[in-house]
Amino acid sequence: MSLVIVGSMAFDTIETPWERKEKIIGGSCTYCSLAASYFTRPGIVAVVGEDFPPDVIAFLKKRRVDLKGLQIVPGGKTFHWQGRYGTDPNQRETIRTDLNVFESFRPEIPASYRKADILFLANIDPDLQDSVLRQVKKPRLTAMDTIGLWIQSKPEALMRILRRVDIYFGNDEEIRMLTDERNLIKAGKMIQAMGPRLVIIKKGEHGALVLGPDFLFGLPALPTEKVTDPTGAGDSFAGGFLGYLDKTGGFSKRDIRRAAVYGSVMASFTIEGFGIDRYRTLKPAEVAARFQEFKTLVSF
Amino acid sequence: MSLVIVGSMAFDTIETPWERKEKIIGGSCTYCSLAASYFTRPGIVAVVGEDFPPDVIAFLKKRRVDLKGLQIVPGGKTFHWQGRYGTDPNQRETIRTDLNVFESFRPEIPASYRKADILFLANIDPDLQDSVLRQVKKPRLTAMDTIGLWIQSKPEALMRILRRVDIYFGNDEEIRMLTDERNLIKAGKMIQAMGPRLVIIKKGEHGALVLGPDFLFGLPALPTEKVTDPTGAGDSFAGGFLGYLDKTGGFSKRDIRRAAVYGSVMASFTIEGFGIDRYRTLKPAEVAARFQEFKTLVSF
Repeated sequence: MSLVIVGSMAFDTIETPWERKEKIIGGSCTYCSLAASYFTRPGIVAVVGEDFPPDVIAFLKKRRVDLKGLQIVPGGKTFHWQGRYGTDPNQRETIRTDLNVFESFRPEIPASYRKADILFLANIDPDLQDSVLRQVKKPRLTAMDTIGLWIQSKPEALMRILRRVDIYFGNDEEIRMLTDERNLIKAGKMIQAMGPRLVIIKKGEHGALVLGPDFLFGLPALPTEKVTDPTGAGDSFAGGFLGYLDKTGGFSKRDIRRAAVYGSVMASFTIEGFGIDRYRTLKPAEVAARFQEFKTLVSF
Repeated sequence: MSLVIVGSMAFDTIETPWERKEKIIGGSCTYCSLAASYFTRPGIVAVVGEDFPPDVIAFLKKRRVDLKGLQIVPGGKTFHWQGRYGTDPNQRETIRTDLNVFESFRPEIPASYRKADILFLANIDPDLQDSVLRQVKKPRLTAMDTIGLWIQSKPEALMRILRRVDIYFGNDEEIRMLTDERNLIKAGKMIQAMGPRLVIIKKGEHGALVLGPDFLFGLPALPTEKVTDPTGAGDSFAGGFLGYLDKTGGFSKRDIRRAAVYGSVMASFTIEGFGIDRYRTLKPAEVAARFQEFKTLVSF
């Protein structure tokens, strides 16, 4: 057990300008663990209701995701999120959120997870992120993600988490909201001053920017003619990134740069299908090939 | 004489959220030729009034820009553009345009320019771009830029130019306007179908994307904490790009990729100062060093 991911498993109802999908599989933990599973054997901490499809549980097991930390609430209903994307895939609007079993979720870290090497606090209530941090020994690396909702409603709880993590993942909008600064480099440095050594700025179709303690890394997104469903791109990025770091065991500049490429690789696959569809068929050889595609894209 | 640039020389009045500068030096031809002068000896075709500062003319000469194609209209007033930038440097608004000597400008290509290797039609009225194309022998490479004004007001004239150029430079907004397609890869391919083999998409703070006949190249912008004045970034990009291609004499994938990096390098310098200020002190060694900075930025 080396990478532990705490986050959501969900039903998502997605509207894009071209299609609508009702209650497909989503959730930060789902996307992140699937992406990470191409590099390591992640363990998850999450909650679902009895309505969560057994075949998805079986699929996660098949991908060798450790489900010891998954709570299945008898008679409970799984968290449901409904969102709409504009023609700009970077813009999305939450239409509806049914917390369901998430309302009374108390993450419990199984004993076998407590010596996790890397802990990822995916987007959940910062108070829950806090309770997770209290349950584990200090991991080699702790990472976090959050959303605008918590930045606005629980800024102090969030600051307490930020102080204790090594890696912060945010999209450009969240990073600007958190710092009230438009320039992403200035904003990233402000976040570094709040705690994390490493700030990863996810810019969707514009790629990603990594601010390290003494280096910068920039990567364009893989140019694509079709984004089927942008949901989960950020969580898959984190999954690829942390899964790769877990696999290498290192944290050098080179490890971090390559981790960011693998994050982008996994995000680029996620958006090719609705929900977790793309992972049903994705082969390790395709992951390796796309890494090379990124290499070719930016070589000069 | 190998790179000829046809475009504007101007006074610009610039408002950023932080500063305002009255009637400083601007114009597509000015920026482009200065950027290109670090790689080759560009010749320009442009018009100014008698009010254009002799010291700027002297500066261009010092940078070894060939001014045989520069018309100075006795008693005339130089073109004046006034624009305002928001906190997002990618967004700008034209507040005022005084055409002045530009109103009756008829570009005349000096005999010594007619065998130009590379011809760049910077942003001017497409009818004037057309008259230039009629005056030169087919150059090795022809490139063009334009703005939303001409895309909306003279689409047919523009299409005639597009059919005859090898390289099209546009920012994301212009490319979407020209094609009515939001996805930049699809839009870029649509423009390739209109004529140019090479479409260069300038995305400001998000970098640049190059669509070749059978390859893609992507580059993030150099992360910077301060954009003093975004004016001229695109023209400097074209200057660095075409100047480098002129210097190498080639048009291979590798040449094009490196040309795009040199374009980004020159744009990154331009935005560090108001108007052409940065060029007053910019040394070739700094250009070389920044090329390496880009290399480091994207290496993994």
